[in-house]
Amino acid sequence: MKETVVVQHIERADQAVIDGLAECGVATVHEALGRVGLLAHYLRPIQQDKSVAGSAITISGAAGDNWMMHVAIEQCQPGDIMVFAPTSPSIHGFFGDLLATSAQSRGVVGLIIDGGVRDTRDLRQMEFPVWSKAVFAEGTIKETVGSVNVPLVCADELVYPGDVVVADDDGVVVVRREQAAAVLEKARARMALEESKRVRMANGELGLDIYDMRGRLQDKGLKYV
Amino acid sequence: MKETVVVQHIERADQAVIDGLAECGVATVHEALGRVGLLAHYLRPIQQDKSVAGSAITISGAAGDNWMMHVAIEQCQPGDIMVFAPTSPSIHGFFGDLLATSAQSRGVVGLIIDGGVRDTRDLRQMEFPVWSKAVFAEGTIKETVGSVNVPLVCADELVYPGDVVVADDDGVVVVRREQAAAVLEKARARMALEESKRVRMANGELGLDIYDMRGRLQDKGLKYV
Amino acid sequence: MKETVVVQHIERADQAVIDGLAECGVATVHEALGRVGLLAHYLRPIQQDKSVAGSAITISGAAGDNWMMHVAIEQCQPGDIMVFAPTSPSIHGFFGDLLATSAQSRGVVGLIIDGGVRDTRDLRQMEFPVWSKAVFAEGTIKETVGSVNVPLVCADELVYPGDVVVADDDGVVVVRREQAAAVLEKARARMALEESKRVRMANGELGLDIYDMRGRLQDKGLKYV
Amino acid sequence: MKETVVVQHIERADQAVIDGLAECGVATVHEALGRVGLLAHYLRPIQQDKSVAGSAITISGAAGDNWMMHVAIEQCQPGDIMVFAPTSPSIHGFFGDLLATSAQSRGVVGLIIDGGVRDTRDLRQMEFPVWSKAVFAEGTIKETVGSVNVPLVCADELVYPGDVVVADDDGVVVVRREQAAAVLEKARARMALEESKRVRMANGELGLDIYDMRGRLQDKGLKYV
Amino acid sequence: MKETVVVQHIERADQAVIDGLAECGVATVHEALGRVGLLAHYLRPIQQDKSVAGSAITISGAAGDNWMMHVAIEQCQPGDIMVFAPTSPSIHGFFGDLLATSAQSRGVVGLIIDGGVRDTRDLRQMEFPVWSKAVFAEGTIKETVGSVNVPLVCADELVYPGDVVVADDDGVVVVRREQAAAVLEKARARMALEESKRVRMANGELGLDIYDMRGRLQDKGLKYV
Amino acid sequence: MKETVVVQHIERADQAVIDGLAECGVATVHEALGRVGLLAHYLRPIQQDKSVAGSAITISGAAGDNWMMHVAIEQCQPGDIMVFAPTSPSIHGFFGDLLATSAQSRGVVGLIIDGGVRDTRDLRQMEFPVWSKAVFAEGTIKETVGSVNVPLVCADELVYPGDVVVADDDGVVVVRREQAAAVLEKARARMALEESKRVRMANGELGLDIYDMRGRLQDKGLKYV
Repeated sequence: MKETVVVQHIERADQAVIDGLAECGVATVHEALGRVGLLAHYLRPIQQDKSVAGSAITISGAAGDNWMMHVAIEQCQPGDIMVFAPTSPSIHGFFGDLLATSAQSRGVVGLIIDGGVRDTRDLRQMEFPVWSKAVFAEGTIKETVGSVNVPLVCADELVYPGDVVVADDDGVVVVRREQAAAVLEKARARMALEESKRVRMANGELGLDIYDMRGRLQDKGLKYV
Repeated sequence: MKETVVVQHIERADQAVIDGLAECGVATVHEALGRVGLLAHYLRPIQQDKSVAGSAITISGAAGDNWMMHVAIEQCQPGDIMVFAPTSPSIHGFFGDLLATSAQSRGVVGLIIDGGVRDTRDLRQMEFPVWSKAVFAEGTIKETVGSVNVPLVCADELVYPGDVVVADDDGVVVVRREQAAAVLEKARARMALEESKRVRMANGELGLDIYDMRGRLQDKGLKYV
Repeated sequence: MKETVVVQHIERADQAVIDGLAECGVATVHEALGRVGLLAHYLRPIQQDKSVAGSAITISGAAGDNWMMHVAIEQCQPGDIMVFAPTSPSIHGFFGDLLATSAQSRGVVGLIIDGGVRDTRDLRQMEFPVWSKAVFAEGTIKETVGSVNVPLVCADELVYPGDVVVADDDGVVVVRREQAAAVLEKARARMALEESKRVRMANGELGLDIYDMRGRLQDKGLKYV
Repeated sequence: MKETVVVQHIERADQAVIDGLAECGVATVHEALGRVGLLAHYLRPIQQDKSVAGSAITISGAAGDNWMMHVAIEQCQPGDIMVFAPTSPSIHGFFGDLLATSAQSRGVVGLIIDGGVRDTRDLRQMEFPVWSKAVFAEGTIKETVGSVNVPLVCADELVYPGDVVVADDDGVVVVRREQAAAVLEKARARMALEESKRVRMANGELGLDIYDMRGRLQDKGLKYV
Repeated sequence: MKETVVVQHIERADQAVIDGLAECGVATVHEALGRVGLLAHYLRPIQQDKSVAGSAITISGAAGDNWMMHVAIEQCQPGDIMVFAPTSPSIHGFFGDLLATSAQSRGVVGLIIDGGVRDTRDLRQMEFPVWSKAVFAEGTIKETVGSVNVPLVCADELVYPGDVVVADDDGVVVVRREQAAAVLEKARARMALEESKRVRMANGELGLDIYDMRGRLQDKGLKYV
Repeated sequence: MKETVVVQHIERADQAVIDGLAECGVATVHEALGRVGLLAHYLRPIQQDKSVAGSAITISGAAGDNWMMHVAIEQCQPGDIMVFAPTSPSIHGFFGDLLATSAQSRGVVGLIIDGGVRDTRDLRQMEFPVWSKAVFAEGTIKETVGSVNVPLVCADELVYPGDVVVADDDGVVVVRREQAAAVLEKARARMALEESKRVRMANGELGLDIYDMRGRLQDKGLKYV
């Protein structure tokens, strides 16, 4: 029933849109999306203060088997981000400095992995960002073939190849390729709106007043004593 | 049965005492308290090497609902620390850079939250420290009213409004307001005692001798072979 | 049935071998061992970008009781690494800056602990590295005697006194003392091999070609579409 | 700072009220309370299909130390339920068949424990119900004194001595003693209301119509396609 | 970006095929699928020794909000199974005996929920089977609209409306509707094959001989000592 | 470095001793051992009210690979218990009804597995008891050879082939083969002692008096108020 395929040609979003989404960051993009698209919170960055976005190259492989990583790298273009999900739970160290060297030479901007990663110090030094479920040195085998660029579930969220994946210190969010431009527009509008509020708040104005909340709080029965 | 209230006037400990407790740090204060008062270890800081203490403004809100954060900020004074506990488990991102801007403008020194936080990079850049259960960008709603400045359980520990909350890289500890001065005295005595031991240990003297443990170890049956 | 002993004389591996293993790092040593020896991934460093190796001084103590730490330090020599496992699960803060001062004065290079640690900021400032299951300030007692330098299970892995323990950002691996020299040789050979591949990959050559994987992928049924 | 006391005289709710709350069950009582009072969901019963309620005898003891269990049993009366919380996280087997025999001879109706329990088969055969965080045979010591009948936090919830604790297959809920009678009244009203709805639903009527939800769904923008 | 819709007409697999898959059970169906399709192992049944299969009615709702359950029940036909996933992690008790009464009156055969359930004793007595992430009595609200019969991710696995969901003591597996008949055929073939092996094994024949493994083990280097 | 061997001849404890230990149960044996020997509490039985003991056949296999199960069964004799530990964390379903049929035909009395199990309903019906880390239907492969009857760490505890493993509703404990007879003697003495106390407690005598604890409690500062 299960097929193992490599889809070689995928559509990608406009690079300017992708770069714009990286600037907006995960929380803002998630809000612009209508509060969907977040991958599970257990995906954590191995580095700090890094924000990236890229076109998803999706990779489905067996637990403890990183063979498809090599297959996937060939399909990558500059600006892509690798998204790996094992077919059953696994925290093996699927990815390390050698694969990162190869990926970086293709212009890959990062890795999202619902599994483990190793050589984390090297990866930080190389400035190759990773969001993973675990850091673990456990070695992997190359026995079972999987698929590249098929829709898959990574950390509880569905990702299609070519979707825009945005990742920063807050986690990872996925934006459907066709919606990317519209989402960017909304995200920027939200940022502008937030900026004006930030100024007012920095000056001591309260959210209670900025958002005109006092009446509704009273209606809901909140008592001040 | 459940009431939703905002208590507007709370007692606070002396600021000099609060500052003193921050200097002592969590482990020392916990020992001075007789080894009680620690919030659960799953509360982790989003920043490193930061130690704060403040008067607790307690906030009880619904899961996935951050409305009471806005209500609470109005009750804050310089030197306060916000302590948020949802009424049922939730890792939503209840707090981000906008709320932090507002809180910081009121002089709030940090946030303890038994839930999620987002915009963590911004928060670090603003030097607004947070100890949270999770980092997660998931958005929240403003539908359900809760309470501010009522006693609540945060991360397994009871916190009263006006209690002194101390937080550093080791976690979070709470000191009852009325005990704060006495605890500070004990904590400082302990630090002085530790300092003398540190010097002896740095010079190679063993704890076995400094604490005179050898006889008791022998009595308990420890054998050297 | 259970004995509590301190074994005073243990064999250690050659220091040059130990230093060599530290340079190779956890992932490489684990591979050179034939993919065994890793301690559980939940042991995490409290610091970043630090790699150490040492001869294991093993310490078995009761949950919430750090008495044997003091006993163990007397048995330590320069270049040793302390390996502590409680006899039942415990995340108490078994170790802090005072014990670290004492251990460091004996030349101990670090601590591996299947439990909690505290005073983490001080430990980082002292440059005393720790890999632990938790950071928690909870105090410990000194009531129950345990053992030093007996074989024990730490974080799912058997460690003998005198084994070489290597730890870095990826976690912790243990090498049997008698195998240490041979493992170092294999690890260095692996590093040399990896270096040549790194150069090729950095130049854009693919793992698919370097490892000659295309035929085997085809045999296993992988389809390109 | 910490005191260790046994409070010998506590107030209890009316037994008929307690029995009534047991009949209503945890979910209904939680609703009648306004959706508060639940202990953390990780407390699970060791038996099935058992519902009890009792007056809380609260017990605070050290991690891995069950001494205060013996102290507490002397304070128990028929209809009481023991509520144990260790002062730091611990899954030791604090309670087994001997203590249950003793407790049962005093008329204790069950145990709620934010820790471990053992001899679970015997406990089921004795029909002594337990809700615990873990099942674990690990033995405990009797070294540290704690307190009986002081307010404490058990599994994230504050419990006062004499509060009514209700437990069944869904978990555990606590009702303040003074509110018990009023809560029972509300709970019974709720049950009556639910019964009428159950009949309508069993006959195929939909919640959408019984609760008149269709208009509000439409107002919120739900589309049928 | 996010739409909230109720898809009223979905395709379902043949009931005889669905019933056949229920008989085969989760492990066999998973194997017949080529080892895919399992929902995360943390979904556990509240009952024992029950095996069901049904056509998936998928339900996407907000954390802590069970409004869409009511909406979904109207879309159910006899033989359907409800599959609920909250849009962010939540263990609230989304479902209890009233909803089960309503669902059962429509012929619904069970519930799969990546969240909490309550009234579990009643549900067992009603013989309404549930597989859930948690048992928790925490109440839910009815504020946010979601969707029914859209593709969603439940417990790490993608489920389409109308897919066949099989659940038993081992967990939950999903079969695409279009593949259901072919999978059943494979599953039955596997069962027949297993039956013949079971007889041989019951008679003492070894898997080593039945599967002719000895040569391959020797080739891989296994030594008997 | 790693060898893969099958050790064909192991020593076993006397069957009468093994049977005696099964009767004593896990908690009593653990106490008789001096409170050591427990496997991690996350190993849970798939059945209820079953107590077994057997001679350990230890099995070390790769994550997600159950090949060595077949190899191990050939080494089993009546009265043996299989103890499986994967070389890295894995919750795959390593064992099901077919393997159980084969094992049962050799007289194997149960399975302890630091991994997953499937076909749990069948296993209960066959009365083949299992203690596992997870129930999960995920299939395994047969690619990597491991070892049988070598010392290994299973669920945090070291097990030697031929050790006596005792398992019941409370969990799993391991007794060194050479100590088994002496431990049984201690365990029986403990049971006799407990029996006399049980009678006294059932008659309402308190542990405080039976164990003469009142003076020591007073010395430690416990106050009655």
